[in-house]
Amino acid sequence: MSLLVVGTVAFDAIETPFGKTDKIIGGAATYISLAASYFSKDIHLVSVVGSDFPKESLEMLKNHGVSLDGLQIKEGEKSFFWSGRYHNDMNSRDTLITELNVLADFDPIVPESAKDCDFLMLGNLMPVVQQKVIAQLKKRPKLIVLDTMNFWMDIAMDELMKTIAIVDVLTVNDAEARQLSGEYSLVKAAQKILLMGPKVLIIKKGEHGALLFNKEQVFFAPALPLEDVFDPTGAGDSFAGGFIGYLAETKDISFDNMKRAIIFGSAMASFTVEKFGVERLVGLTQAQVDARVQEFIDLVQFDISLV
Amino acid sequence: MSLLVVGTVAFDAIETPFGKTDKIIGGAATYISLAASYFSKDIHLVSVVGSDFPKESLEMLKNHGVSLDGLQIKEGEKSFFWSGRYHNDMNSRDTLITELNVLADFDPIVPESAKDCDFLMLGNLMPVVQQKVIAQLKKRPKLIVLDTMNFWMDIAMDELMKTIAIVDVLTVNDAEARQLSGEYSLVKAAQKILLMGPKVLIIKKGEHGALLFNKEQVFFAPALPLEDVFDPTGAGDSFAGGFIGYLAETKDISFDNMKRAIIFGSAMASFTVEKFGVERLVGLTQAQVDARVQEFIDLVQFDISLV
Repeated sequence: MSLLVVGTVAFDAIETPFGKTDKIIGGAATYISLAASYFSKDIHLVSVVGSDFPKESLEMLKNHGVSLDGLQIKEGEKSFFWSGRYHNDMNSRDTLITELNVLADFDPIVPESAKDCDFLMLGNLMPVVQQKVIAQLKKRPKLIVLDTMNFWMDIAMDELMKTIAIVDVLTVNDAEARQLSGEYSLVKAAQKILLMGPKVLIIKKGEHGALLFNKEQVFFAPALPLEDVFDPTGAGDSFAGGFIGYLAETKDISFDNMKRAIIFGSAMASFTVEKFGVERLVGLTQAQVDARVQEFIDLVQFDISLV
Repeated sequence: MSLLVVGTVAFDAIETPFGKTDKIIGGAATYISLAASYFSKDIHLVSVVGSDFPKESLEMLKNHGVSLDGLQIKEGEKSFFWSGRYHNDMNSRDTLITELNVLADFDPIVPESAKDCDFLMLGNLMPVVQQKVIAQLKKRPKLIVLDTMNFWMDIAMDELMKTIAIVDVLTVNDAEARQLSGEYSLVKAAQKILLMGPKVLIIKKGEHGALLFNKEQVFFAPALPLEDVFDPTGAGDSFAGGFIGYLAETKDISFDNMKRAIIFGSAMASFTVEKFGVERLVGLTQAQVDARVQEFIDLVQFDISLV
């Protein structure tokens, strides 16, 4: 089924203990679309870039089956740019530069071809912009997944709460779940957040995996233990992309299928962190994806028969 | 099969954000034996207490099927006492008081009835004392599990390395695995530690679960997401007790059975943290244990069929 992805398409410059990059392509919608492309064949991207964004990167997205009809290219303007430095533990980072550029007055335009999308992934963006996308759709999608971050909780909580109230699945990290709920316990935090609107909450814990909650059930997916996490940038977006891409392809939004979707999302995130930027996420084979998912199965499956 | 447990039997005084206790009973061997008692029926404890240790607590251990033939009671002396305060995150703590008392010159004596034990659990103690226990056995146990901590890495690394070299399974937490190996990546840390002697390594990550490694395989068990972790004291020992108790009962030390054993260990730890001290670990029913293990199954099991 058709999947609409909204979010940034941007430049990143990244420093980690393993090295640093010049400007490379990044952005939430880039990671989400690439990860989703291994599952869903009908993906529409809504975003904005400047004319400085490399044509070959746009071709790369098209080659992954991502329709760019909804991508605005602003002539003579510059793409959104973020630069950050990761600490040694790879779980925390400092932002060095944020240049909004074309993102400063981003007015999303959903193309006709995507206005009846069945699945909508709202990558991290200003909550008002996320609402504008929903307002342009002809019908309510079967599933809306929202990603957001602490930044919007700090400066636009009212608008964020309005957006959260109208989505089906919310994804945040553990610190953001605590900030949003005012609860330290993630179980209590989930209970409170599930009263704010979403039917399902995903709490991302980075190298410590992810928790999936609805009002009655909880599921946990680990992160794959890797020799090195090379660059965590985009891991959460790749996770979200694999998650919604799998759901869109299987057309099944039951809790049991979301468990599978979280494993596929975790697998895509585990690829992303192995190299800088999107490098590892481009041109994977089905066999590579399957082998990675098998590693997750081997990592957590056991057989206990209780009498 | 018979299980010998060596470690402290002690008093603790604990402060957490939820409250504080006066002196209550604790100690690694206490938690290990209680947790193991839900699986293994032939448990021998080797430890030392002073005459201040409450008789009813010794009766409680006996009622759990733990033989105290190897427990030395030093007349007129005082039991080991530890006092600590947990921080708000419950993952870190400050030691307020450590009074070694009878532990200062603890010379373990393995009773005849336990000298041919099949399973040996060496709870956290001075490495030299742990070696003295092994030296008294008539035959090499089928499995020796060693728990230790950063304190011995700081002050007795040579003796600790000698002990590590002769055991089958080592359990440490993530910070200790990093200290022992000099590697930040837990995967690399495990590879190095498995060259030091043990065939199997368990890295405990507290609320983030536990990893089981041998040279070829890795398994991950989550911690149960709880509304509140009331008191983490003894969680690691309860985990170890459930782990080795299950192995001793099933007489199967394959990697696949260790996966099951880790789930049972995690279940026992999840009980321990729900109340202060050993309170929650005393007098559980088989139905309660089974229901808890079922929660772990529900938490992580999913079905993905790769073609």
